[in-house]
Amino acid sequence: MITPAPRRAPEATGVRRLPHKQVLDRSTLDAVLDAALAAHVGFVDETAPGSRPRPVVVPMGVARDHDDLLVHGSTASRAMRALAAGVPACVTVTLIDGVVVARSRFESSMQYRSAMVFGSFEVLQGRAKACALEVLARRLLPGVTGQREPSAQELAATAVLALPIVDGWPGRPTNWSVKISAGGPGDGPADRDLPVWAGVVPLHHAWGTPRPAPDLPAGIEVPPAVARWVDGRP
Amino acid sequence: MITPAPRRAPEATGVRRLPHKQVLDRSTLDAVLDAALAAHVGFVDETAPGSRPRPVVVPMGVARDHDDLLVHGSTASRAMRALAAGVPACVTVTLIDGVVVARSRFESSMQYRSAMVFGSFEVLQGRAKACALEVLARRLLPGVTGQREPSAQELAATAVLALPIVDGWPGRPTNWSVKISAGGPGDGPADRDLPVWAGVVPLHHAWGTPRPAPDLPAGIEVPPAVARWVDGRP
Repeated sequence: MITPAPRRAPEATGVRRLPHKQVLDRSTLDAVLDAALAAHVGFVDETAPGSRPRPVVVPMGVARDHDDLLVHGSTASRAMRALAAGVPACVTVTLIDGVVVARSRFESSMQYRSAMVFGSFEVLQGRAKACALEVLARRLLPGVTGQREPSAQELAATAVLALPIVDGWPGRPTNWSVKISAGGPGDGPADRDLPVWAGVVPLHHAWGTPRPAPDLPAGIEVPPAVARWVDGRP
Repeated sequence: MITPAPRRAPEATGVRRLPHKQVLDRSTLDAVLDAALAAHVGFVDETAPGSRPRPVVVPMGVARDHDDLLVHGSTASRAMRALAAGVPACVTVTLIDGVVVARSRFESSMQYRSAMVFGSFEVLQGRAKACALEVLARRLLPGVTGQREPSAQELAATAVLALPIVDGWPGRPTNWSVKISAGGPGDGPADRDLPVWAGVVPLHHAWGTPRPAPDLPAGIEVPPAVARWVDGRP
């Protein structure tokens, strides 16, 4: 299959800094979102002491279901309650792929893939909530089977929220942006002959060997699907 | 050396959910902040179209210098301009250490270390700016030497910001919180006999083999300090 080169952003988009790193392909957004186990979810806390609304950024497990970003958590959590009330949110996913060592300190940087999605979450209920929990479990616990399903009480204590991913059309921007920084050191011509090492030190994220719970009865082996995580990417 | 057990949070602190995961030791905060290459920095964008201020969460390289969290970036970036203006910010650092597979889906979770610091950044200038850039370089490019120092023009194009870490005292809360989730599956007694595997799948973050820049002249070897990254933690 031939993958078309990513389209680059025209000047009119929201990303102003390093616009050459921005990618407009929805498939690239999906790939970045699907590669992350967790997102950082920002919202404005208007109940904080003092007069000025303050931002709060919390990590959350995340899963994409087609055009929705799904998160779940306790109905008692401050973050979930705020998000469930529909406050404006920003969901950012970042994967750091390496450190770029340039001959000049100024050009040194990181390789990363980062996606941001803006909007307000909606609360899922009933069948939509159950389906979303399935999607979250398949993403965060891939291949794990046989677990006890949530009880009615556990379900009631769990909030499941969806943030729609909105693709743009002419005159209307998307509610997301993606930046990919995959290049090496961008030293200018005057620096390229410096007798200094330059390159990329990649950063890997990999599963280790599963550790059984201390109280696991003898004879229950690691499920093959979980054992296979070790060979794959998180 | 005997490390004292972490103090746990009393009820009066800001963390309401899973307070048993909260840690009050400043040394634990420092360890989490120092283990991360990047933070997610949230701020409130009051210039967004529409009437409601929206949160923005951006990834940034981060380094701690004693009681300050340091970030740097282009003076042209929207995020740096907003943060430099002193808007309320939240800096969150999260390290995901593994996935907890429980017998019940409800008890499945992640192992993580996460720190949040709230406040407003201040802009560093002159000697303080130069010192902070040194701290950032030593953290983000440990052991790298011989790089060309920033020119006056490059320095002028770089904003360096510091967020103070404020420890609390009786009657005044800290401006930070830390949560550590390091336990295994917390299945209740009724679930512990289910014939289902339970345990932790650790997630490792490790350096790969350095890749020289394609235009690196022959004969310039990977610096020993960078080669040693491969054996250490990011």
